[in-house]
Amino acid sequence: MKTFVLTIGDELLSGRTVDSNGAYIGKQLSGVGAPVKSRATVGDDVAHIGRVLLSALAEYDIVVITGGLGPTQDDVTVEAVAAALKVPLVTNDEVLSGIEARYREWNRPMPQAVTRMARMPEGTVVLENLWGTAPGMYLQADHCHMFLLPGVPREMQGILDESVVPIIKALPGLTPVHTRAIVTAGISESALAEKLADLMPPPGSPVKAAYLPGYGGVELRFSSIEDPEALDRLVDQVSERIGSHYIGDAAREDLVGHVARILVERNETIATAESCTGGLIGKLLTDRPGSSEYYLGGVVVYSNEIKEKLLGVPHVTLSQHGAVSAQTAEAMAAGARDRLKSTYAISVTGIAGPGGGTDEKPVGLVYLGLATGKGTFSREMRLTRDREQNRLRSAYAAIDFLRRKMEAHI
Amino acid sequence: MKTFVLTIGDELLSGRTVDSNGAYIGKQLSGVGAPVKSRATVGDDVAHIGRVLLSALAEYDIVVITGGLGPTQDDVTVEAVAAALKVPLVTNDEVLSGIEARYREWNRPMPQAVTRMARMPEGTVVLENLWGTAPGMYLQADHCHMFLLPGVPREMQGILDESVVPIIKALPGLTPVHTRAIVTAGISESALAEKLADLMPPPGSPVKAAYLPGYGGVELRFSSIEDPEALDRLVDQVSERIGSHYIGDAAREDLVGHVARILVERNETIATAESCTGGLIGKLLTDRPGSSEYYLGGVVVYSNEIKEKLLGVPHVTLSQHGAVSAQTAEAMAAGARDRLKSTYAISVTGIAGPGGGTDEKPVGLVYLGLATGKGTFSREMRLTRDREQNRLRSAYAAIDFLRRKMEAHI
Repeated sequence: MKTFVLTIGDELLSGRTVDSNGAYIGKQLSGVGAPVKSRATVGDDVAHIGRVLLSALAEYDIVVITGGLGPTQDDVTVEAVAAALKVPLVTNDEVLSGIEARYREWNRPMPQAVTRMARMPEGTVVLENLWGTAPGMYLQADHCHMFLLPGVPREMQGILDESVVPIIKALPGLTPVHTRAIVTAGISESALAEKLADLMPPPGSPVKAAYLPGYGGVELRFSSIEDPEALDRLVDQVSERIGSHYIGDAAREDLVGHVARILVERNETIATAESCTGGLIGKLLTDRPGSSEYYLGGVVVYSNEIKEKLLGVPHVTLSQHGAVSAQTAEAMAAGARDRLKSTYAISVTGIAGPGGGTDEKPVGLVYLGLATGKGTFSREMRLTRDREQNRLRSAYAAIDFLRRKMEAHI
Repeated sequence: MKTFVLTIGDELLSGRTVDSNGAYIGKQLSGVGAPVKSRATVGDDVAHIGRVLLSALAEYDIVVITGGLGPTQDDVTVEAVAAALKVPLVTNDEVLSGIEARYREWNRPMPQAVTRMARMPEGTVVLENLWGTAPGMYLQADHCHMFLLPGVPREMQGILDESVVPIIKALPGLTPVHTRAIVTAGISESALAEKLADLMPPPGSPVKAAYLPGYGGVELRFSSIEDPEALDRLVDQVSERIGSHYIGDAAREDLVGHVARILVERNETIATAESCTGGLIGKLLTDRPGSSEYYLGGVVVYSNEIKEKLLGVPHVTLSQHGAVSAQTAEAMAAGARDRLKSTYAISVTGIAGPGGGTDEKPVGLVYLGLATGKGTFSREMRLTRDREQNRLRSAYAAIDFLRRKMEAHI
């Protein structure tokens, strides 16, 4: 089964948008034995889309198209596909009434343009879009299975996972790929590679391995077509070697999910006190449903005055050690734990950059703080000159700091 | 001048790596009048690379290839290009001694594999790589200008900016593309399309237009090769028609930047009180450097008890109207403004989902609150069933709620 991915949109070519959909589709389809062999990106141009599509139909078994399904004049994917396949465009009444119902539910007038999203090439099977308005579409032509998906990543991912993957899985002639993935935290890709050097399979092995670095930690992915037992054995060995950096099976939980699960199991709670991360830790802790079970709330304290006022950081601590110090980080955490009556509180104070650094306290200097029933703790980090990276890395590091202390029952 | 971009690498197809190079190249080359018309991604496969390259040479004036120039066996781009062009591979002695000199400088033994990076198709002009080892390459074939660049983003960007862009700029026959972009807020893509229907250029016009929806608002992009005056006229007309949804020129600012600029100009400050957004508004307001000039801090209040305790939301308000109500949103904003002594405070309380909804207060029901020197205000929103979308949309909507009141001096 050979798969071709076509992503459509002028904004992808002009560089206004980075195409993250191509990678997501590649990841999901290689997992079910339909690896992507080639990808193309073209603009919102009926003739160009048609040319690329016709040559792909001749060569591939599966074609996934994303983008250009919206309500506006520059969304021409459906026209282009219908023209290339020489089938008429028809309005799907069921989809149209679904769209009308949504607007009624929202109590908003439905713009006429929206009805464009109910048009599709004759013979299309509709793939439900629970995350937006434009439906996904499934067509068969010349022994090729063709999927049309919206370009909005959230909608594309939802329809791909819920509808496209199950359809592809049911196709005859697929070779299933066995995959396992491990989440780690608090260790860099190169340190991990050194630690695991003798365990990792050499090129040509029946098991393949790959490192996937992210701000929350490095993910390790393993796959095998022939040998699921060797795969499981390797994952066990690697997991053991990783030690305290091991978080869990990626299919079950990531760092935040891991911490959340332990908090809920122990019936414990957390609060946050943030300076340079500006609310990011709270945002990460509440990204998942049910976060009110363990997250009580937090305080974002950008100025010294507010640090004193909302968190009770002693004036003398700020004047003697400065806002970016281990002492302030611990006082922030203690203040949040005290005021919010949580089991734990974590804090971050630092110089995210690009401005604000000095010789003594350069950009990238960050202190993590933690308050538990047994005392307060802090950790110094020296990060980069990049603001976004510094904020993300320190937010995740604060959550991992809590995890280590929780797991050690401190 | 038509440009084709070919990105090479198994990791791009399997989804291990998101291809950010394609977007960067698109942005830089559209700026110099050589817009990218099409992009393709293939794996590290000599035959496949050759096929795609030959068909691109027939159709395009400029071809930019990235990836597969490294030292390992799976880096086959140079072989593939030489084979497709039917020219021999030669070792460039100057590049080879450069590589050897680097290793001497680093005081590290040079692995034999590294010498592969000095091989190139006969007739290649070397493009210096100051950021890594593999050089860039420039070849001409069949009236087509071809550039080979490493896949590591920093190296690719460096060689593109320092060598490729100057070469392309000097080519005869370039037509500069004029572009303008407008940021809007608080209006959906389809409502905007309806509002602008009669102004927007029909297909085939000298000015092209595109809608780019995002959580912060829809961006409108306009471009013209021949007619910059028509472009400016259209942008003026559209900007006026958009009315209070108009934020500004995208080259200058987005919604948050717009609000930040006005706050700084007026020497005013803001504080946040968040429930379901969990810190996201604070995070968005502090994404940019210098945010301490206008953002004082905020409070994330997930439980009712904390809403009372940290923000002074009256117990009777919570018990009579509930945590998700206009009254609570206003009390949260007033409490934050009072405690943080800011000019304005914005708040969000709602049911982000997927759980927690009732018939009376369904998932997606959100209240925005605002406190100014003149009073407190609130706005009800009915969003979707998707947690992530609801959080992002309500966070940006709260910032836009402030913008409108600020611009009206309320």
